[in-house]
Amino acid sequence: MKTLTDARVAIVGLGLMGGSLAAALRGECRSVVGVARRRETVAVALERSLIDQGETDLETGVRDADIVVLATPVRTILHLLDVLGPWLPHDCLVMDLGSTKARITARMEALPEHVQPLGAHPMCGREVSGIEAADPTLYRGRTFVLTPLPRTSPRALALGRALAEAVGARPLTLGPERHDRLAAMISHLPYLLACALVGTAEATAETDPVVWEVATSGFRDTSRLSASDVTMMLDILLTNQDAVLEAVQACEDQLHTLTELIEAGDEDMLRTILTARRNRRSSLFT
Amino acid sequence: MKTLTDARVAIVGLGLMGGSLAAALRGECRSVVGVARRRETVAVALERSLIDQGETDLETGVRDADIVVLATPVRTILHLLDVLGPWLPHDCLVMDLGSTKARITARMEALPEHVQPLGAHPMCGREVSGIEAADPTLYRGRTFVLTPLPRTSPRALALGRALAEAVGARPLTLGPERHDRLAAMISHLPYLLACALVGTAEATAETDPVVWEVATSGFRDTSRLSASDVTMMLDILLTNQDAVLEAVQACEDQLHTLTELIEAGDEDMLRTILTARRNRRSSLFT
Repeated sequence: MKTLTDARVAIVGLGLMGGSLAAALRGECRSVVGVARRRETVAVALERSLIDQGETDLETGVRDADIVVLATPVRTILHLLDVLGPWLPHDCLVMDLGSTKARITARMEALPEHVQPLGAHPMCGREVSGIEAADPTLYRGRTFVLTPLPRTSPRALALGRALAEAVGARPLTLGPERHDRLAAMISHLPYLLACALVGTAEATAETDPVVWEVATSGFRDTSRLSASDVTMMLDILLTNQDAVLEAVQACEDQLHTLTELIEAGDEDMLRTILTARRNRRSSLFT
Repeated sequence: MKTLTDARVAIVGLGLMGGSLAAALRGECRSVVGVARRRETVAVALERSLIDQGETDLETGVRDADIVVLATPVRTILHLLDVLGPWLPHDCLVMDLGSTKARITARMEALPEHVQPLGAHPMCGREVSGIEAADPTLYRGRTFVLTPLPRTSPRALALGRALAEAVGARPLTLGPERHDRLAAMISHLPYLLACALVGTAEATAETDPVVWEVATSGFRDTSRLSASDVTMMLDILLTNQDAVLEAVQACEDQLHTLTELIEAGDEDMLRTILTARRNRRSSLFT
């Protein structure tokens, strides 16, 4: 297995995540090959110097790669893992950047024995998407979750860590189910809350459109995630159903506790809980 | 009733809202008197040139005022309205900046007949608070809700509008109950969602503290409002209970629709709804 410096890296999918990874990896490895279905996407990536070489044919793109990174929505990754096997060179590291990990790492088990699979998920979503939004600094300072399989070798995991560090991220090794449960709480739940909030205001607007005129920065920020890419989010929700439903239920329990205290006018307990939330939030972000 | 230019404006409460209003009004009226309980607050306001004159005694602060603006948390406003009456000069405009309006305008009915009451709520909350955060541009471009009472004269309402426009805001006249219902949906609900989200993550963290390491900008933004001032939010929640509980229920209905579709794997309907939310959010904020 090559070192990162000597590796030819093929990135399949040149959206925000793939395009940004390509840009961040240039100069850190031997060469970056970008693979996208649409010729226009490859042209933009070449024009913006995000990649050294561009391909629209998957086989051509990956057959000489030392590292293959699948950077598409989750269900496209699952499909790619089904077809990719025969074209992968010996000792190739196959990573993905998918937002859920259990289904993907399970599918990776079926890859040919001569390759090394490694699940990954850099925690740096934005509500913008597409190659136009690609940014070489996207991964800097972010947590880059790595989910090795039982068959993943220590050298393969080390190469994955080196890649994460090369783009400025902090690698964090987790089991795939643990990742999915945490991601449901910290990322998929906020998305659903944002969508439900916009839906609530939308229902109000049907009888009273003035609601949009009184929307403040609080509404703007709390609803921001609802502007996320729908295809990406659908893939996430439908490949992480159990953990997502559990997270929503846990949040509804929290809401019920609050509404019961509001209804009862229990000021002391309400103050205790709201103060704890405020202190926690303030300690996390300044 | 004087014009704004000739008016002596007394602002009771020199936190973010009152301090910012004082700063924005200087030069737009004859003089700005700041009233705060704590001598230190008055000293900071004078030192930062937010006010022309400072008082810690309420009676002294308001007895020569043409306009009195109550800029404290809601329940303090309710208390001030109970005690303020005897000190108010003839034809004085009494406004407030409280976040809920039904309880306050009901209490304003009991003010002496020789004054003019007018409820108000500028829609420009921030999660920071205190005189240190005061900013003369806080109100610029914001919707400034005015809730006149049946007894409010057209001239008093016009003076309230002039004050809103003088600080760069857009006045919007609404009935107090309508304001409270809309504010519950667009502002109090997001706060509770943010608190419930932090509570959900906190509960997860009790068994798996790694959850904080995978928190992204999505969690940061969706949870931002939970860092709001607790006393202010308690007053809001406990003076707008019915509308708040109704808003939470409406949001839970939206959440249930989403979780049922996720559980059923109904991708088509899920895509339709999530796309509608995304389009609405994108049309509101760019």
